[in-house]
Amino acid sequence: MKESPLFWPAYFKKDILFVLDETLIPEKLKYIEVKTPAQAVKVIKDMKTRAFGQFLVVLSTFLIVLKDKKIKTDKVLLKKLLSAAEALNKSRPTFPFSEVTGMVLGWAQKAQKGNLDLRVYLNRNIEGFLLGIRGRRLERVEKLADTIKKYKNILTHCNVSGELAMAAQICKAQGKDIGFFATETRPYFQGSRLTAWELKKAGVSVTLVADNAVATLLRDKMVDAVVVGSDRSCANGDFANKIGTLQIAIAADEFDVPFYVLTQPSNKVKQGKDIPIEIRDENEILKVKGKRFVPKGVKGFYPGFDVIPHKFITKAIAINVN
Amino acid sequence: MKESPLFWPAYFKKDILFVLDETLIPEKLKYIEVKTPAQAVKVIKDMKTRAFGQFLVVLSTFLIVLKDKKIKTDKVLLKKLLSAAEALNKSRPTFPFSEVTGMVLGWAQKAQKGNLDLRVYLNRNIEGFLLGIRGRRLERVEKLADTIKKYKNILTHCNVSGELAMAAQICKAQGKDIGFFATETRPYFQGSRLTAWELKKAGVSVTLVADNAVATLLRDKMVDAVVVGSDRSCANGDFANKIGTLQIAIAADEFDVPFYVLTQPSNKVKQGKDIPIEIRDENEILKVKGKRFVPKGVKGFYPGFDVIPHKFITKAIAINVN
Repeated sequence: MKESPLFWPAYFKKDILFVLDETLIPEKLKYIEVKTPAQAVKVIKDMKTRAFGQFLVVLSTFLIVLKDKKIKTDKVLLKKLLSAAEALNKSRPTFPFSEVTGMVLGWAQKAQKGNLDLRVYLNRNIEGFLLGIRGRRLERVEKLADTIKKYKNILTHCNVSGELAMAAQICKAQGKDIGFFATETRPYFQGSRLTAWELKKAGVSVTLVADNAVATLLRDKMVDAVVVGSDRSCANGDFANKIGTLQIAIAADEFDVPFYVLTQPSNKVKQGKDIPIEIRDENEILKVKGKRFVPKGVKGFYPGFDVIPHKFITKAIAINVN
Repeated sequence: MKESPLFWPAYFKKDILFVLDETLIPEKLKYIEVKTPAQAVKVIKDMKTRAFGQFLVVLSTFLIVLKDKKIKTDKVLLKKLLSAAEALNKSRPTFPFSEVTGMVLGWAQKAQKGNLDLRVYLNRNIEGFLLGIRGRRLERVEKLADTIKKYKNILTHCNVSGELAMAAQICKAQGKDIGFFATETRPYFQGSRLTAWELKKAGVSVTLVADNAVATLLRDKMVDAVVVGSDRSCANGDFANKIGTLQIAIAADEFDVPFYVLTQPSNKVKQGKDIPIEIRDENEILKVKGKRFVPKGVKGFYPGFDVIPHKFITKAIAINVN
């Protein structure tokens, strides 16, 4: 199984974090050099990275601070870790970055109380956590392959960071003939740029449709299952995902097509309506590829995410948690 | 009430038909000179004109033939009318152009049987019919204004050829504070380009959203009614309209938001599933503003229209028929 670059879109090389610039795909496979927490926050805010990539960057931001040799004392180190955490928490409201940053700050507290070497302890814990996440995501890819192999045509929305492409490869290797429909996913075109690209690279058939064509595909049974990712999960099973996911879920329900979601369970938020929804800059909808052709005076409204009630989920394909 | 250019987007001047090039709005208000039936078919196929504009062009194509002074005999005239009708009928499969062309050919037959002057009779009938349509559409604008004036925020999809903008002006003149949300309507951007433009010109508040944001607007009651047009109606009340209308109808039903449709009733087709759906060139979805950024090998699927079952319609705002 060949790994999609979107599966693990950030890595360290000689103490510099390289983050895949997802806005340049498929034209270019280019990585941005990130050397400071401020630069890390910027790649997140500008959506150069997204979905799982953001969590990688959040965790890696602490590693950037830990690798900074100019920081000599634990006191300064702690201060820098705290301010990095604060900036990350504020970067995109819908994402539970504070759960991740809180975990790291918890480890820092523990190191201090236990009189452990702060740098060594945090480095080891963060790297161990990343390895664990990697393993659990690979397990989820296997689960996903098991789920989708019984279908012929699968509809997906936005991009699930490499996992669908890798599951498709597993199905293909097992001789299953499986094809995909990807929505273009306006306004950011993740479907056209990322999903179509990685599914094509995985060697499976992929057809792009307008976000508007979803109900027709479901009604005519041109797709026999839907698979989407999730950006945040609630205790009751509700989840947040890219805007547009809710209308797909409702239409799938209307036409009795199974609706699967890749989740990372969390009990921090009780129910969907408690998830804050990020409202992004109206220019991201008023402009297309940098050009505005909407008349002056017209406003734009761009909520980044939908909240999907758990009643619409046929089955959650969850990451294993301890 | 100021008339939107989209309300009557084709007119004759010195025997030449001028057709509004809707692809250039809002940058330019430019009309294409159409001098032959072949040119008329081309502006329809290329979607330079659309919706009501197409019907105007279909009827006007016969007037182009009738105005051609090189045609000397009724025999040649009839032949030219017939071949124009055939070319028009084949131009876009979802539209019932044959109902219009059949009507004109019926008049021609009647003229021949009754020994009437073919040219004079057809000219008078077509022009009379156009005047009648104009009057009935203006009546429908009044009905629409009566329907929407009780709402605060209305969601619309694609473009209803001037009628919504004109109804909005009536509401505004009556002191009603009414605002609109327009979907951008991928892949052709009718919402961003046409609807946002004409509503803004009508002096009302208009906010553009991605097609993906519809369910969120409906769930949060940010809109309290939906108004769409229709490209074709069936005897049982089902109708065809721009792709994307079906998922809006399903979501409006899920969240109990009233769903209105502007129709021109017809009994020629029994039910929605009998309407042929035009599948347009995949490049119209694979390219955005002329540029392809989807990787090679990825296919596209672009059905032009949705069929909406009548069960989703709160009320049809119908054109009066005799």
